[in-house]
Amino acid sequence: MNIQPLGDRVVIKALEAEDKTKGGIILPDTAKEKPQEGKVVAVGKGKITDKGIQPLEVKVGDKVLYAKYSGTEITTKEGDELLIVREEDILAIIK
Amino acid sequence: MNIQPLGDRVVIKALEAEDKTKGGIILPDTAKEKPQEGKVVAVGKGKITDKGIQPLEVKVGDKVLYAKYSGTEITTKEGDELLIVREEDILAIIK
Amino acid sequence: MNIQPLGDRVVIKALEAEDKTKGGIILPDTAKEKPQEGKVVAVGKGKITDKGIQPLEVKVGDKVLYAKYSGTEITTKEGDELLIVREEDILAIIK
Amino acid sequence: MNIQPLGDRVVIKALEAEDKTKGGIILPDTAKEKPQEGKVVAVGKGKITDKGIQPLEVKVGDKVLYAKYSGTEITTKEGDELLIVREEDILAIIK
Amino acid sequence: MNIQPLGDRVVIKALEAEDKTKGGIILPDTAKEKPQEGKVVAVGKGKITDKGIQPLEVKVGDKVLYAKYSGTEITTKEGDELLIVREEDILAIIK
Amino acid sequence: MNIQPLGDRVVIKALEAEDKTKGGIILPDTAKEKPQEGKVVAVGKGKITDKGIQPLEVKVGDKVLYAKYSGTEITTKEGDELLIVREEDILAIIK
Amino acid sequence: MNIQPLGDRVVIKALEAEDKTKGGIILPDTAKEKPQEGKVVAVGKGKITDKGIQPLEVKVGDKVLYAKYSGTEITTKEGDELLIVREEDILAIIK
Repeated sequence: MNIQPLGDRVVIKALEAEDKTKGGIILPDTAKEKPQEGKVVAVGKGKITDKGIQPLEVKVGDKVLYAKYSGTEITTKEGDELLIVREEDILAIIK
Repeated sequence: MNIQPLGDRVVIKALEAEDKTKGGIILPDTAKEKPQEGKVVAVGKGKITDKGIQPLEVKVGDKVLYAKYSGTEITTKEGDELLIVREEDILAIIK
Repeated sequence: MNIQPLGDRVVIKALEAEDKTKGGIILPDTAKEKPQEGKVVAVGKGKITDKGIQPLEVKVGDKVLYAKYSGTEITTKEGDELLIVREEDILAIIK
Repeated sequence: MNIQPLGDRVVIKALEAEDKTKGGIILPDTAKEKPQEGKVVAVGKGKITDKGIQPLEVKVGDKVLYAKYSGTEITTKEGDELLIVREEDILAIIK
Repeated sequence: MNIQPLGDRVVIKALEAEDKTKGGIILPDTAKEKPQEGKVVAVGKGKITDKGIQPLEVKVGDKVLYAKYSGTEITTKEGDELLIVREEDILAIIK
Repeated sequence: MNIQPLGDRVVIKALEAEDKTKGGIILPDTAKEKPQEGKVVAVGKGKITDKGIQPLEVKVGDKVLYAKYSGTEITTKEGDELLIVREEDILAIIK
Repeated sequence: MNIQPLGDRVVIKALEAEDKTKGGIILPDTAKEKPQEGKVVAVGKGKITDKGIQPLEVKVGDKVLYAKYSGTEITTKEGDELLIVREEDILAIIK
């Protein structure tokens, strides 16, 4: 199955705990806003501005840190749990 | 009957349960914001920006994932139940 | 009597029940936002944007679907009940 | 006395009941937002946009329909009761 | 003492009751928003827009009608009571 | 120590009571919004607009009138009490 | 580990108390909005405007004063406690 997010939206697959250890970000339980690590699986064409369409900064395959409670969760037929967020809700790319 | 939505609006026909199985998206009951699958049956000319009219990304025939409780429901004389939403409320195209 | 709406406003004459049957849209009573059918009798010059004035999409004679509780009702001396709405409140043109 | 409204403001003299009969608009008492008829006696230079100053659509002498409870009432030394509104609050020109 | 207001701000000296009679505006006590007459004593360079700085319409010496409860009151060492308002809060120039 | 405020921010040193007498502004206790006099000690590069960066109107050394309760107070190692405000919160330059 | 913040975001490492003494800013306990000193460790590509991408003013290595309770805290595998904020929340660069 293939999902093409619209506009400035991005599809993310959350990284599991073991992956989280690899990624190296430990999130404090007391943080006001809890970010989470994930992998980008699809990106929209970009955000519409008065200069035209501004392409997104993230690309498929990027490991990203995003705001945990943002976006919309979906489960594909193959059983993948994915999240559709706006790029605005992605804080950083982890290299 | 022919409906031409205005601006950045899109007319969608919700996909039935059997179609939903085909599309392959299973939606968790606990999701904060429940998206739904549907088929685009008509699209507006685009969104007015300061660069002029920005054409929509979706086109007639696209299978889309949209925010379930958005938009306005109408029932045509032929008995079709349709939904008029803004493209903003469409999350992704499913291929 | 002649009414020239300003800016992006449109003057609409609501279609009666018999016309509504002809138009073919049956509106569910439970809809959150009830649209209604009407006929455009006058249109403004357009919406002011930073690109200049953007002409409206609807034109006199169009049968339109609009948000029922929007706009301002007036009754002309001839007894016509009209509605002045912004084009923003018109959902679609019915052909 | 001479009043030059600023920006997109317009000075209106409300039409009396007898004039209202002439104008031909009968306003329902139950309308959510009650418009009223008046005559334009002065107009501002226009609205400031990023394209420069956009001149107003209404001009001195126009009979207009405006939102009744908008704007600021003043009484001139000559006893004229006037209303200063933004052009935004004027719904239509009556011809 | 010399005050140079910033941006789209204007310094106004309220006109006394006797001046108000001369100016000719009698303000009803029941007005929802009470405007007042005053004289412009200093003006800012203009409002910053995307076209650059848009000079103000009012100039020093203009008699103006402004929203009474807007702005910030100051008293100079010479005992002058002045008001600093945005040009937005000035309704009209009285000629 | 050297502070470079960002964007449209300005660093102000409040003028003491004796300076205030010199400056000549006496502020009424009953004013809704109490402005205060101060001296500009550092200015940002300007406000980002769609025309690029718009330089600030105030410059180092200007005596200004600003909204008293705006901004962020800091105390430097040398014991100076400073205030970081946006230029927006500065009402006027006193000459 | 390498973090690339998105857009106008900046990654900051808070300066410890001993560093704070060196930096020279003493923050009053009674301040309404408490700023804090930190060091910039990564910066985003810039803010998207209608003129294109506006690069950030701060750069890696800058000592900055920022709004204490803004942003999102993260802890890296190496044990570094970092903060991701928007440049908007940075008040000034300390030189």
